[in-house]
Amino acid sequence: MVIVGVGLIGGSFALALKQAGGVRHVVGVGRSEQNLQQALQRGVIDEIASDLPTAAGDADLVLLAVPVGQMGGVMQQLAPVLPAHAVVTDAGSTKQDVVALARTHFAGRLASFVPAHPIAGAEKSGATAAKPDLYVGRKLVLTPLADTSTQAVQRVRAVWQACGAQICEMSPEQHDAVFAAVSHLPHLLAFALVEEIAGKPSADQFFRFAASGFRDFTRIASSSPEMWRDISLANRHAILQELADYQCQLERLQGFLQQADGDALLSLYSRARQAREDWIHACRPAGTDS
Amino acid sequence: MVIVGVGLIGGSFALALKQAGGVRHVVGVGRSEQNLQQALQRGVIDEIASDLPTAAGDADLVLLAVPVGQMGGVMQQLAPVLPAHAVVTDAGSTKQDVVALARTHFAGRLASFVPAHPIAGAEKSGATAAKPDLYVGRKLVLTPLADTSTQAVQRVRAVWQACGAQICEMSPEQHDAVFAAVSHLPHLLAFALVEEIAGKPSADQFFRFAASGFRDFTRIASSSPEMWRDISLANRHAILQELADYQCQLERLQGFLQQADGDALLSLYSRARQAREDWIHACRPAGTDS
Repeated sequence: MVIVGVGLIGGSFALALKQAGGVRHVVGVGRSEQNLQQALQRGVIDEIASDLPTAAGDADLVLLAVPVGQMGGVMQQLAPVLPAHAVVTDAGSTKQDVVALARTHFAGRLASFVPAHPIAGAEKSGATAAKPDLYVGRKLVLTPLADTSTQAVQRVRAVWQACGAQICEMSPEQHDAVFAAVSHLPHLLAFALVEEIAGKPSADQFFRFAASGFRDFTRIASSSPEMWRDISLANRHAILQELADYQCQLERLQGFLQQADGDALLSLYSRARQAREDWIHACRPAGTDS
Repeated sequence: MVIVGVGLIGGSFALALKQAGGVRHVVGVGRSEQNLQQALQRGVIDEIASDLPTAAGDADLVLLAVPVGQMGGVMQQLAPVLPAHAVVTDAGSTKQDVVALARTHFAGRLASFVPAHPIAGAEKSGATAAKPDLYVGRKLVLTPLADTSTQAVQRVRAVWQACGAQICEMSPEQHDAVFAAVSHLPHLLAFALVEEIAGKPSADQFFRFAASGFRDFTRIASSSPEMWRDISLANRHAILQELADYQCQLERLQGFLQQADGDALLSLYSRARQAREDWIHACRPAGTDS
């Protein structure tokens, strides 16, 4: 197995599969030699490959666990050297863009490409943060294409199940619409609120009185700016749609406030509170974002 | 001392002052007989008064710890029976509206009214949730008026300091502007996001994939709808201003997405992340909201 990008996501996948006895030999490829050395020392990988073409020649399974912005370059390197029997999957946070890149770079080999998104992640990153139980009970979304072979989907499904993940399938379009609403938009809203307050002339006075509600609301604004730039660009059409819907919602609220319509406010807040309570009680949250 | 509204806020104030030896006899008044009985049993109060006029006749200090929406009615009952030496303070989440009510109901007695807002609170409510250390290290904002006597301010300052609170002073206008930005607006934004997703035709599918980022971002949407209706109405002018500024910020973001301007997105996200990290490291959050 070849892991391209041995960070929290790729490294935890390797550790989980090793623990489940689902893999013999793991080869790691990445940009940071130091990170790869740490991965080797911790037993996350068994071998460091100097470059992707060298690593991929003997691969049975390749996991692309690099930021979405680097996915195209990695696919381009991988395509010419991929063995005929090998299956490729990814862990990208957006799917339509990854699928589009795969159509470009894996033309003729799409049957063995299985787009996927594990709903897990954390503040920490790098191989040292990897842990074998990261995916236990977490959701894994597969977005197979019409071209994807059933055997390839079954193999990828099986390895993620071995990691403890719950497998769901949807189309790349559905995936991107759902995550634009429940993950990407909230990240943008949190970044925007902090930006707004930080830009005030007396920002210090404002931050001084921010309490735990603000802390939790903006927790996701401490996420990696580079990663969220990539996700924002990759899924910008779906995010723009969600943002427009949300702006309409804010205009409704604005109207209620302007008219001092207490009944309408109470009704909206009560519905929202109930919907959130129902969600919290129905399903424990699906994992951490991205 | 008379506590009007023996919930988490009023009850914790009584317990803290008792522990500090700052009060002899605490009389509780409230709408729920059951809650008052529990307060008596737990030693939060020493006596239940049948009504406010009865309780207030002997008061040295009166704390109004009722929801902002009930403040006017309470003041109206209190004004005619208040002893000349008594000081009145409140724990309302908004200040300009409470001050306006005080000007109406305590005309001629404004010298002994000290508007205040303890930055503490929690998911739990009622006398059973009261605890003596709720205010330790938390901020307490005083917004004295030009009419408020220095002695009255000193007395209220002293009792809150005895509860362990850090005292800050600002004008009612400043108070409402600051809390509109760092507390009230985020609550509205969280309610609006849950309302937006709950209103989708396939809401279940969306909620199913909501993860920990969504959970934390929307935590404040599980707050009391009645309380937040009252706060929204009481501080609607300042909230409308903050909402308008925020909508401009979202339009900027929308523009960056439409133009696929990765540099502008990265720059905004990086600034926001840095500002939040600076805030988190500079000052531990000021307490829980409202």
